[in-house]
Amino acid sequence: MDLQPILDGIADKIGPHLSEGRVADYIPALARVEREQFGMAVITCKGETAQTGAADTVFSIQSISKVFTLTMALGKIGNDLWERVGREPSGSAFNSIIQLEREHGIPRNPLINAGAIVVTDVILSNRADPGGRGSGEAGIDAIREILDFMRSTAHDETIAIDREVAESEAAHGFRNASLANFMKSFGNMENSVERALRVYFHQCAIAMSCKQLARAGLFLAADGRDPISGKRIVTPSRARRINAIMLTCGHYDASGDFAFKVGLPGKSGVGGGILCIVPDIAALAVWSPGLNKNGNSHAGTLALEMLARETGWSIF
Amino acid sequence: MDLQPILDGIADKIGPHLSEGRVADYIPALARVEREQFGMAVITCKGETAQTGAADTVFSIQSISKVFTLTMALGKIGNDLWERVGREPSGSAFNSIIQLEREHGIPRNPLINAGAIVVTDVILSNRADPGGRGSGEAGIDAIREILDFMRSTAHDETIAIDREVAESEAAHGFRNASLANFMKSFGNMENSVERALRVYFHQCAIAMSCKQLARAGLFLAADGRDPISGKRIVTPSRARRINAIMLTCGHYDASGDFAFKVGLPGKSGVGGGILCIVPDIAALAVWSPGLNKNGNSHAGTLALEMLARETGWSIF
Amino acid sequence: MDLQPILDGIADKIGPHLSEGRVADYIPALARVEREQFGMAVITCKGETAQTGAADTVFSIQSISKVFTLTMALGKIGNDLWERVGREPSGSAFNSIIQLEREHGIPRNPLINAGAIVVTDVILSNRADPGGRGSGEAGIDAIREILDFMRSTAHDETIAIDREVAESEAAHGFRNASLANFMKSFGNMENSVERALRVYFHQCAIAMSCKQLARAGLFLAADGRDPISGKRIVTPSRARRINAIMLTCGHYDASGDFAFKVGLPGKSGVGGGILCIVPDIAALAVWSPGLNKNGNSHAGTLALEMLARETGWSIF
Amino acid sequence: MDLQPILDGIADKIGPHLSEGRVADYIPALARVEREQFGMAVITCKGETAQTGAADTVFSIQSISKVFTLTMALGKIGNDLWERVGREPSGSAFNSIIQLEREHGIPRNPLINAGAIVVTDVILSNRADPGGRGSGEAGIDAIREILDFMRSTAHDETIAIDREVAESEAAHGFRNASLANFMKSFGNMENSVERALRVYFHQCAIAMSCKQLARAGLFLAADGRDPISGKRIVTPSRARRINAIMLTCGHYDASGDFAFKVGLPGKSGVGGGILCIVPDIAALAVWSPGLNKNGNSHAGTLALEMLARETGWSIF
Repeated sequence: MDLQPILDGIADKIGPHLSEGRVADYIPALARVEREQFGMAVITCKGETAQTGAADTVFSIQSISKVFTLTMALGKIGNDLWERVGREPSGSAFNSIIQLEREHGIPRNPLINAGAIVVTDVILSNRADPGGRGSGEAGIDAIREILDFMRSTAHDETIAIDREVAESEAAHGFRNASLANFMKSFGNMENSVERALRVYFHQCAIAMSCKQLARAGLFLAADGRDPISGKRIVTPSRARRINAIMLTCGHYDASGDFAFKVGLPGKSGVGGGILCIVPDIAALAVWSPGLNKNGNSHAGTLALEMLARETGWSIF
Repeated sequence: MDLQPILDGIADKIGPHLSEGRVADYIPALARVEREQFGMAVITCKGETAQTGAADTVFSIQSISKVFTLTMALGKIGNDLWERVGREPSGSAFNSIIQLEREHGIPRNPLINAGAIVVTDVILSNRADPGGRGSGEAGIDAIREILDFMRSTAHDETIAIDREVAESEAAHGFRNASLANFMKSFGNMENSVERALRVYFHQCAIAMSCKQLARAGLFLAADGRDPISGKRIVTPSRARRINAIMLTCGHYDASGDFAFKVGLPGKSGVGGGILCIVPDIAALAVWSPGLNKNGNSHAGTLALEMLARETGWSIF
Repeated sequence: MDLQPILDGIADKIGPHLSEGRVADYIPALARVEREQFGMAVITCKGETAQTGAADTVFSIQSISKVFTLTMALGKIGNDLWERVGREPSGSAFNSIIQLEREHGIPRNPLINAGAIVVTDVILSNRADPGGRGSGEAGIDAIREILDFMRSTAHDETIAIDREVAESEAAHGFRNASLANFMKSFGNMENSVERALRVYFHQCAIAMSCKQLARAGLFLAADGRDPISGKRIVTPSRARRINAIMLTCGHYDASGDFAFKVGLPGKSGVGGGILCIVPDIAALAVWSPGLNKNGNSHAGTLALEMLARETGWSIF
Repeated sequence: MDLQPILDGIADKIGPHLSEGRVADYIPALARVEREQFGMAVITCKGETAQTGAADTVFSIQSISKVFTLTMALGKIGNDLWERVGREPSGSAFNSIIQLEREHGIPRNPLINAGAIVVTDVILSNRADPGGRGSGEAGIDAIREILDFMRSTAHDETIAIDREVAESEAAHGFRNASLANFMKSFGNMENSVERALRVYFHQCAIAMSCKQLARAGLFLAADGRDPISGKRIVTPSRARRINAIMLTCGHYDASGDFAFKVGLPGKSGVGGGILCIVPDIAALAVWSPGLNKNGNSHAGTLALEMLARETGWSIF
């Protein structure tokens, strides 16, 4: 399949929709991003690539980072993770608080904020031996380890954290502080809330392009092994399970809708990015900052619907 | 792939687990079913079949019927259905009530009870022209139309409703009556609660074997067309979307877990049956009456995990 | 204290507010009541009376009936009632559903709909020996017994049920049917939902004037004994406890606000009436059909605030 | 009425119940309090006093402090307070979180934790001119102002804060930190969460005896003016309204039950104390560290029931 003309066709058709969404405005650093931007990149398990639009422009990956920290945490403590976080869709943000109470501080899944904060807490408590690189400060070491993992999976050492975004998140992070303290009151946080949130806000502030993101996620399309370098990152079974969680939980309260319309595992971020996995075939990323009412990229979701229709890539 | 030895191997390994679950006991007709039974049947898109254990024993399909009534309702009113029922996972039964209130009587998805009752209401309001067969009574006509659809997709005219189960459901159906009245108070029921529930309890009381059920679901594995008779039942896009809903919503509050462990679209029933779709490959059904704490067949779920592992049939 | 000028003064001041509320419109029989009406009646424990405006006009007492059925049910089964209904405020209607689920079908208090339906169920199961008057049909006998109790406490045999309202309630009573079925699913309804609701809708449709209502409630101001006839209706302790429940639970999700502003035990109905008890001093009733956003009489609540301020009758 | 023999009689009868409750154990400083202690003190508006048991032993007043900070905040910003906190009972702790979300960060009432933290935030933002006493640090000044208010109403300069309890509260205050951050995310906290909680934990750690507490609350029984010194603390209307809030909201999810059984405005604390107001007659305090399942003093509640029965002091 020749992907380039498909992507170009989507870019043509998506134009009129770029002004329909609404840019995230809860922090200034995100609010001033120009809305009418669009980029898309695909990389297949055979190494073929295609891209269109602003596929090399970096943006704040935000919640997409949760897929990668989940991968890291599973690598560190394996299935023990599931003692501390569930694997069920959460419904609305409203419901996720109710459920957090009913389920004694165990978040529903690792892709909602509460769950991702627990995952970050796991990474903090199980930091790699820093060797000569460790700063000696737990938070900094954990941030560096996460960044290193992103660089390594993306095969790109230039990936960086947008410190302004990280600081802005911290200054407006009361809701996340509420969740973290709530879990801590149930004994489901090992580190201090401040430290865990600091790491969490930094992971969300990683800046990447569609091209980098698709490359970073490719191992999930290839049974957990990077199909280009041949390096195994997770076991086949674990890769498939991460995909399953993305499908059921990757788009907040629109996860069912995304599965219905696109039919692929994916994870969106409030920066307007979406990472999508086509098992055994490809990884792809799309970006457009305007969000729909569920907080997912409006044009990005439309583009993925078009792509799924034209390629027949639904997993169903 | 030779399926028969795989199924036989599973039947051997599943034995010790048959006594672990708990038979549904909310109505006498289900409570007296012998727990230690197990059957499994597969039919591929090429028409190959394999079965093991009590694959010809009929059981109460219960909620599995929801997949078929959803198919029927989409055939009748198409995407208008989504004005009256959502497509998002619902979390626990507790949450589904909260959400029903918050979302003004629109159930989260067509595979939870509230959603399935709306689907039944749609079928009642849009009954096929009964021709010479109509009884003239709406409820009876709707029940017959559903039963006819099951017989037609299963290619088996002997399929019948267990009237004792249907009556028993009706006599204990206060929770469903509560949901239906609640939706009616929001204007999301067109027919009387009594009539809609009567049809609903009868559809749940359809008795089928694993073999019949797998055959009935085969069109969902084959882009909406029965691959053996060649008869189109739904469009390819709609078949894939029904599968997507099964994956995200098919197992109550264990849907995420089922996706994680089995990785296939499926729908369970409290009678102990599970219908599973392997897109482009096969349909299969498993049955064992002992349920796990989430109300899904304990041994049936284990058997599907084994099957997915041994065949590599995960969609992820 | 000369009450007549106080009441007349209130009637003067209340005029401009009569057009501010909104008449209940969920059933036609209530919707067509003229909004700009106002009446108020007081009767003291010494038998002094005062009234102003439309104090002799009958209106649908609706939820005010719950105070009297609670009194009857306590007379029949005493404190056993508290096994089936709580005594805590319920917050919003939304919360009362959540709590009904969390608390296994035990409603929070006898003055919300769910609780009042349980109280009606108790009356049905414990009907007085009908003697020569019983119809032999449980529902009719219970309705008659409730009506007889109202007539007896009000010392007025002309009090009647507005059958059009009762039928209209039944035709629109899906929310109550939902609650009753929900409680039945938890085993907290002894009679059939249909029968209990029939009685419930009839008790709500009792039509009384402010004058009749104040007279009927007078025993609650006088330690449970009608201070005029000397007839004991409940024990002193029970009368005080019924008043306590009215204070904490009598005005739906505005009970705290009513206690804050008026400072007296009271019970409102969606027909625009409010019964108020001044312990050891008087009973009074006010009526004006326009409701505020919490479903309590707008002008009625204002009038009671004025009265409490001018008489110093707060219990606090 | 001669109160002393009544109190002595209650002390006799309460003995067997002192071992029935359970001492609060969420912080070590409270957990090691000897359970089998009991004290009670009454002071009438005429200045008569009676006391029994350990009425001079100081204990941690905990949530009883909320009545006094509410009084202070109303003195500072008047009814503007009601823009930031409601006046309705909250039901269970579970419900109070749900309601906080539904009501956009506005807590239900000033006597639950969330509401009391907002009240503390108001005091912080509106500190009295410190004159020569201010430390220059907002938190310390606010703590001192609250302590001064307690000393002033109790007419006892020896009242102090138990710093060990305050520090212990802070070290275990994750649930309160969660609530405060949640409200901050809705813009309903003016000061930093850390500062507001610091003050809040100190006010809860004030140590007082029953005798001191009854004296401090006496103005609420006397229309807002201390009946002994003649000093006005709040207006009559405000005093009555504070009493109304105590009655409907003073005992967590047992407020209705307390109104039902005792019939007096009161506020309990997890240290085992209860302050009770008998409007126009007296203020009283009881203390016994063993708590019932609702977190209120078990023996203290029983003692108040006895007292209400023997004195006839119910407001109903």
